Amino acid sequence: MNLKNDFLTILRGALQAVDPHEALLRLLDLETGSLLMGGTRKEALDLESFDRVFVVGTGKATASMARAVEERLGPAITGGLIIVKDGHTEKLERVRQLEASHPVPDERGLAAGRDLLGLLEDCGERDLVIALISGGGSALLPAPAEGITLEEKRAVTELLLRSGASIGEMNAVRKHLSRAKGGLLARAAFPATVLNFMVSDVVGDDVGIIASGPFSPDRSTFADARAVLERYGIAEKTPASVLLRFADGVAGRIEETPKPGDAAFERVRQFIIASNLHALSGARDAAARLGYHPLILSSMIEGDTADAARWHCSIAREILSSGNPVPRPACIISGGETTVRVLGSGLGGRNMEFALIAAGEIEGLEGVLVGSAGTDGTDGPTDAAGAMADGSTIARAREAGMDHADYILRNDSYHFFEALGDLVTTGPTGTNVMDVRIMLVV
Amino acid sequence: MNLKNDFLTILRGALQAVDPHEALLRLLDLETGSLLMGGTRKEALDLESFDRVFVVGTGKATASMARAVEERLGPAITGGLIIVKDGHTEKLERVRQLEASHPVPDERGLAAGRDLLGLLEDCGERDLVIALISGGGSALLPAPAEGITLEEKRAVTELLLRSGASIGEMNAVRKHLSRAKGGLLARAAFPATVLNFMVSDVVGDDVGIIASGPFSPDRSTFADARAVLERYGIAEKTPASVLLRFADGVAGRIEETPKPGDAAFERVRQFIIASNLHALSGARDAAARLGYHPLILSSMIEGDTADAARWHCSIAREILSSGNPVPRPACIISGGETTVRVLGSGLGGRNMEFALIAAGEIEGLEGVLVGSAGTDGTDGPTDAAGAMADGSTIARAREAGMDHADYILRNDSYHFFEALGDLVTTGPTGTNVMDVRIMLVV
Repeated sequence: MNLKNDFLTILRGALQAVDPHEALLRLLDLETGSLLMGGTRKEALDLESFDRVFVVGTGKATASMARAVEERLGPAITGGLIIVKDGHTEKLERVRQLEASHPVPDERGLAAGRDLLGLLEDCGERDLVIALISGGGSALLPAPAEGITLEEKRAVTELLLRSGASIGEMNAVRKHLSRAKGGLLARAAFPATVLNFMVSDVVGDDVGIIASGPFSPDRSTFADARAVLERYGIAEKTPASVLLRFADGVAGRIEETPKPGDAAFERVRQFIIASNLHALSGARDAAARLGYHPLILSSMIEGDTADAARWHCSIAREILSSGNPVPRPACIISGGETTVRVLGSGLGGRNMEFALIAAGEIEGLEGVLVGSAGTDGTDGPTDAAGAMADGSTIARAREAGMDHADYILRNDSYHFFEALGDLVTTGPTGTNVMDVRIMLVV
Repeated sequence: MNLKNDFLTILRGALQAVDPHEALLRLLDLETGSLLMGGTRKEALDLESFDRVFVVGTGKATASMARAVEERLGPAITGGLIIVKDGHTEKLERVRQLEASHPVPDERGLAAGRDLLGLLEDCGERDLVIALISGGGSALLPAPAEGITLEEKRAVTELLLRSGASIGEMNAVRKHLSRAKGGLLARAAFPATVLNFMVSDVVGDDVGIIASGPFSPDRSTFADARAVLERYGIAEKTPASVLLRFADGVAGRIEETPKPGDAAFERVRQFIIASNLHALSGARDAAARLGYHPLILSSMIEGDTADAARWHCSIAREILSSGNPVPRPACIISGGETTVRVLGSGLGGRNMEFALIAAGEIEGLEGVLVGSAGTDGTDGPTDAAGAMADGSTIARAREAGMDHADYILRNDSYHFFEALGDLVTTGPTGTNVMDVRIMLVV
């Protein structure tokens, strides 16, 4: 079917645009010993001016970034180490790869974090640090502050998750329990020059949130952190060591995380090399090449998955009925990360769930295909990246003896689309910039 | 403030485009005794070929439509009657106006319905019936089928509302308990020629749903109606007269509602003269005149109001950050009708609630204004049509001593925006095509 092929072509366009290896190769250019950023001399960095060049990193997509740096800089690299998720290694020659556990941190991550901090602290004014950061980088580099154990940090995280605290509030606490988060890797690397390349897996691309912002200023304070524990009534259950640390911090006996304008960031330059919007733009370009009228709605869609599926489909119906917001053949593109209210015990993820709800909304419509995929190639605890649905999905499911409503109730989107042959499988992509939704109306 | 003025100008553009009086004047044109539809001779109707011309109607917006017909056809009108909501009358000379109760039907509606049916049944082959239908037309014209009382019909409606039955299922039942709904007014008027002008207050503009489709084919059957009562387990509580009627209908002892292709519709021509999309198009044109890049997302947005506010604002943020889906100055327009989960005891409506949630989403942003209004000029049980919010709303509320979160919890959007002076008040507009949302990003 043509629409399915087009969907996969457009999705490939999205994924290619956020391949960290490709993106970093595009950005880094060597010319007579100068490191050109984005191919222009304006942002050039003279490699000759550095004694040593280290490559460090943490996160799920760092190995392919490190490979790009090796390909460009080769023998100019003195050494370095990156921390990756188990099995997420690549063939590297100069940069050490340490595997650690994700999403639950472990002792290997702890040891790797100590090595990484040691390397950065050892750097001097004439060193260049190329720091590669991507989603998952926080859990892979657990570095509890002095006097706090990994177990205590984990206990606080658990308390916060159950308390209803916002992401911002959680980060205020966690950044004040770490030796790496909230700009502390930048402080460790000072006075070296740091080039910080990031793959963003957060809505809005806030560099203070990607992997908890190890090279980014922190606006929160010890006082904020303590206030969060009090606001949610979890101070009594919080380990004494943590309360003591916050008290010391508020009293000025422990140094604050570096704030905007801090000297730690004077020599840090940050680049987001791949983001959800980059993926959507790649999809847009691929759709345009296929002759579609593409429209990017937003890279910042959050909220309930089923709701999102419904309003996306209301736009498909409007295109069919009036040619708004863009005429046929139309390709509507959106990104971000929605949430699923899991009530059933089935197998699925937010992308397959999106397609499952959409299937009912576009039942019987001709020339409409809706699909969604996680850019890391994984949706929920499955081997699929997502799924796609069209006007015939419900009828085909019925013929196959499947009750659509029942699969919704059980949150069993994986088996629904598996039986129909409409799963989207890409395999691991080596990147992670949240989800991409593509809706074709012809 | 400029953005507020622009919002109001754009909203006015939307309302003007769906003024039923204006729309009908534009559509009806008289030229040497011919009634031109849309000003073209192709759809012309020779008034001389009719012995009599009757104007009938039911719904909240019918009086202003009748006035347009009087202005165009004047003495050519033999007579007629329209049923309107209490107080929704206009100055008419040839068409009688009967007031009835809405949304709960009453005896006056019952009597008016008898008169209207009598008039239609009395029409012959050489008569022209101009039938004006708009939202609320179903409740204003309660015409229970033979052997069913108004009270029994009401009891069934109550049971259905509580059962979880879909709108389509409810209509299947109600159309088989009526002498007017589901095409039965068309059957009554046959063999007269009928021009049916409608103002659509339903998502998707299905003519079978507007005022329960008195001049439209009905696809549902007595068997469907009976199946709905059984599916939701409410057959035992249903009045015996209703069960008896459905049994008679299934057995073929009572005539079915007219289906597509039925002779009753041979001489019926239907026109939606005002719809939500017309309003959105009016807003788009007004926005373009002000220099905005307008974009109509969809006229079919349903679902939870708070969710809708959030994803609308995620598009505003994308415009600020990347110029997608349209560059600044942007005007994003959407319509339809969302729902509010009312948990508090405050005063509000879905449009003000939309603005209340949006206020939090755009807090602190420069150059963003979000507003929503009901096209009938009424939002919830208030005298306001809606409200607008911008990046300063939360700060201004705080200065005024109001806690935004508290107003959300209490669903008290009216008092929140009243205190800020940000209610949108239009007064009764004489039309009703659901809601219009307008988002400006400059």
